[in-house]
Amino acid sequence: MAASYTTRSSSHPRSNKLLFRQLFEKESSTYTYLLADLSHPDKPALLIDPVDKMVERDLSLVKELGLKLIYAMNTHVHADHVTGSGLIKNKIPGVKSIISKASNSQADLLIKAGDKICFGDLFLEVRATPGHTLGCVTYVTGDGPDQPQPRMAFTGDALLIRGCGRTDFQGGSSLQLYKSVHSQIFTLPKDTLLFPAHDYKGFTVSTVEEEMLYNPRLTKEEEAFKNIMENLKLPYPKMIDIAVPANMVCGLQDVSAKPVEATSN
Amino acid sequence: MAASYTTRSSSHPRSNKLLFRQLFEKESSTYTYLLADLSHPDKPALLIDPVDKMVERDLSLVKELGLKLIYAMNTHVHADHVTGSGLIKNKIPGVKSIISKASNSQADLLIKAGDKICFGDLFLEVRATPGHTLGCVTYVTGDGPDQPQPRMAFTGDALLIRGCGRTDFQGGSSLQLYKSVHSQIFTLPKDTLLFPAHDYKGFTVSTVEEEMLYNPRLTKEEEAFKNIMENLKLPYPKMIDIAVPANMVCGLQDVSAKPVEATSN
Repeated sequence: MAASYTTRSSSHPRSNKLLFRQLFEKESSTYTYLLADLSHPDKPALLIDPVDKMVERDLSLVKELGLKLIYAMNTHVHADHVTGSGLIKNKIPGVKSIISKASNSQADLLIKAGDKICFGDLFLEVRATPGHTLGCVTYVTGDGPDQPQPRMAFTGDALLIRGCGRTDFQGGSSLQLYKSVHSQIFTLPKDTLLFPAHDYKGFTVSTVEEEMLYNPRLTKEEEAFKNIMENLKLPYPKMIDIAVPANMVCGLQDVSAKPVEATSN
Repeated sequence: MAASYTTRSSSHPRSNKLLFRQLFEKESSTYTYLLADLSHPDKPALLIDPVDKMVERDLSLVKELGLKLIYAMNTHVHADHVTGSGLIKNKIPGVKSIISKASNSQADLLIKAGDKICFGDLFLEVRATPGHTLGCVTYVTGDGPDQPQPRMAFTGDALLIRGCGRTDFQGGSSLQLYKSVHSQIFTLPKDTLLFPAHDYKGFTVSTVEEEMLYNPRLTKEEEAFKNIMENLKLPYPKMIDIAVPANMVCGLQDVSAKPVEATSN
């Protein structure tokens, strides 16, 4: 069965204001997103899920585009790479780090469901989408005539294109993830563009409609989904013991600073 | 110096008709592009620079989106991967392969500068941009009120984001590449979105304005550019002896079919 599209559905947001860039880190297959309001004199900007080793690239682009970075935000405490929030804060004083309160992590701003994150005249809404981790959130562009159309949802690891994040670590729960996606993401307009934190097959974007039709896991009934997630037999995440403690102090990176002896090796 | 943007400049095309997807192949860092006219009853679609090993992914997406693939096109004879055009033609009879006449390769349609490639009510213009290879072309979305805004240019290896293709093989010429980019790409509207055939740093898109300001090679004078290109000291392309002969029979893959013994191993 083919997805039915209206002619309104394109694959990218239409906005006179929004600057949008999708950036990729190959080793962990992580997407970082840069958003800015070009209509505002300051061109205020934010980065979603920056990666530590790509901070130089990201900040160089921010500078070249003449943007003022105000937020370095994370969808959750990543287990596969270290967030770039801390490095960014060191390099650009004034940038505020953001993560959910439910993640039990440190950041300048601890957000929760229903909060709005404003940059210029544009904003992101926070939706709680736990299940991959306890504190996962999805950031969704605002609903309104002056906001990007179609809407855009930055789903972190809650919903991946034709997949989803694992649920066997960090307070994960397959039933919670199922409820999160069905109640918080699949209820968005069908043409909402979905931008995940990772893709391993080279996809860059999907839509709510596509995932509701073709996601091989989340189109299943709840019990079948639970069985799939409990039998993935994935290896222990190789970066988890480094990444999680570092990312729990999101934006500070106290962890790497603490063992003074290590830096002299 | 920061690029100056008008509020019209977004980072993605606005169109009520165009479906656009950027797809990535990790090993050769190749981008494949899927474009379709959603307003036409058939939803006619084309793929630019498909990669052989990703054909299953690409055709599965085409099917799920309910598109009718009509063209499998290449910007040039690639040296780093085998085109997917031949496999696509085998799997979907009726699809036509496209490459430039100047490439001296085989395909169903041999195009040249000034040609228009129509899919539904949308079209791509062909611009000759030799220099990386003799037969390189850039495909540019049409100019007109019913075509995507801003315009989009698929530059192959002629212009990469903050870079360009090498010029030491396949009839390459640094001076020719310099002239191609300056006369055929940098003359497009400044907000034209640039989509290259590769990116090695995780960028997905740039603009004419950005590259005219920040491309470290092509912002130089002609002689300085030539010196840069002659002193890159790049290794011999590891895939060239397999990829070029296969890609010269673009869309047919006679090369892989010939050694019958090999298929029984």
